[in-house]
Amino acid sequence: MLLLNKIDDVRKNIKDWKEEKYTIGLVPTMGALHKGHASLIKKAKETCDKVIVSIFVNPIQFGPNEDYDKYPRTIEKDSELCRELGVDIIFAPAPEEMYGENKKLSNNEFTFIYPAYNYVDCMCGKSRPGHFDGVATVVMKLFNITKADYAFFGQKDAQQLFILKQVVKDLNLDINIISCPIVRETDGLALSSRNTYLSETERKNAITISKALFKIKELYETGIKDTNIMFDTAISILNKDIDLEYLEFRNFETFEKVNELKKNTLIAIAAKSGKTRLIDNIIL
Amino acid sequence: MLLLNKIDDVRKNIKDWKEEKYTIGLVPTMGALHKGHASLIKKAKETCDKVIVSIFVNPIQFGPNEDYDKYPRTIEKDSELCRELGVDIIFAPAPEEMYGENKKLSNNEFTFIYPAYNYVDCMCGKSRPGHFDGVATVVMKLFNITKADYAFFGQKDAQQLFILKQVVKDLNLDINIISCPIVRETDGLALSSRNTYLSETERKNAITISKALFKIKELYETGIKDTNIMFDTAISILNKDIDLEYLEFRNFETFEKVNELKKNTLIAIAAKSGKTRLIDNIIL
Repeated sequence: MLLLNKIDDVRKNIKDWKEEKYTIGLVPTMGALHKGHASLIKKAKETCDKVIVSIFVNPIQFGPNEDYDKYPRTIEKDSELCRELGVDIIFAPAPEEMYGENKKLSNNEFTFIYPAYNYVDCMCGKSRPGHFDGVATVVMKLFNITKADYAFFGQKDAQQLFILKQVVKDLNLDINIISCPIVRETDGLALSSRNTYLSETERKNAITISKALFKIKELYETGIKDTNIMFDTAISILNKDIDLEYLEFRNFETFEKVNELKKNTLIAIAAKSGKTRLIDNIIL
Repeated sequence: MLLLNKIDDVRKNIKDWKEEKYTIGLVPTMGALHKGHASLIKKAKETCDKVIVSIFVNPIQFGPNEDYDKYPRTIEKDSELCRELGVDIIFAPAPEEMYGENKKLSNNEFTFIYPAYNYVDCMCGKSRPGHFDGVATVVMKLFNITKADYAFFGQKDAQQLFILKQVVKDLNLDINIISCPIVRETDGLALSSRNTYLSETERKNAITISKALFKIKELYETGIKDTNIMFDTAISILNKDIDLEYLEFRNFETFEKVNELKKNTLIAIAAKSGKTRLIDNIIL
């Protein structure tokens, strides 16, 4: 396994791989890898001849009051996991390698990808303005650097997944976006690098987020479809110290809000437990 | 030569070419081809194994009061020229093929590339808001569809050329942008598909645009460097019916305005002759 920091070094390897007609899989991450990431990497290994994991805490997808500085960075532990899983290259660039020496990078100095605003100006995008522009921009860069045939994303970031699929379609990128299921702790909590921020009590309260989602699914399977009923049920299950940001029901093919649940409905929650913002979802 | 309208048909050919390790050159145009375009195509033929000319009047780079509808469309004449020059594929999609069925396409419904605003919010970008976003977006799509190794652009659109180079750099695109010199009529008028809009008088007046530029170059070669002197000289040469939009002096490596001319200074004019907006420039 190679641990590379420079774009040109990645390109050299890619060139050789393309020469050999290997298929290339990319798993873009911000590091602090957990079992969710491991499941993406395993899927990439099954699907592709060569696998690149990028580890990059992308400054332009964090808002000014978000956790860019304190976001967990655990490159040694991450490398160990990647090696065990048979990753071929870890690409872990410094911010300067990706964005040059600009200290406060904005769209005055740098090219940005702006996904369709209709999909950005809702759910997580409402509370995190600019977030998905930053995600789309770095992902585009990673796609171009790695020339991957497949890229693997977790369903946990459902809005991100939807948006990136649209970007690929709109810009005619020749890459397959593969969605992988959410990995959970045994008590239901969706894995997230941000779970490490949670105190014991906050973690306990956070479990009610997935509990609410599972209850909605259970009701749906008994034939209930009305989202108002689902909403009220969820509220009754969420711990009172959980600060709900949104609970939304959307068609995962069009991203339109729905009033009735059916197959392919996304049920998504964002909420704070203590100061930690968590997201979770299920797709029927 | 193939004339293709569908993205998938282009992709099929590209796949075969890549298999054979041919280098691919792209000449993006809006059709109404003239000798300027021909020079780009010839350069592409010299440089690459296979040459694709795209002919697409790109709606999203035109403002609401611009000439999208009346822009000249001469596909049969264009095809003839391309055939003579040994072009391998003309890609001439309908707007729906590029942007789907959206009638009024905006960044609410579609992913856009926004080049760095510092380079967009000046010169032609000032009077044509959104223009370079539309250009960057369609060019990105064409790059992704054709997987070209080289793309050829005329120096006449100097700001476009500068911006596209930045987009390629910022987004790590693996493509070489090749700039080709301005082609002129014998009287100096820079070739443009929009020259067909000019009446005899308007055309005569328009010649003073290139005359002004040549005079600046002449003065520079005698040792004069002050842009104020150059500006006044140009004004004295421009016909009084020419409506000057801008005359700017910029470092073509940084795009910063300069007060003194030196090597690599861009001297750029936009002006209207009658209702027709024309641009021209020289780079020292």
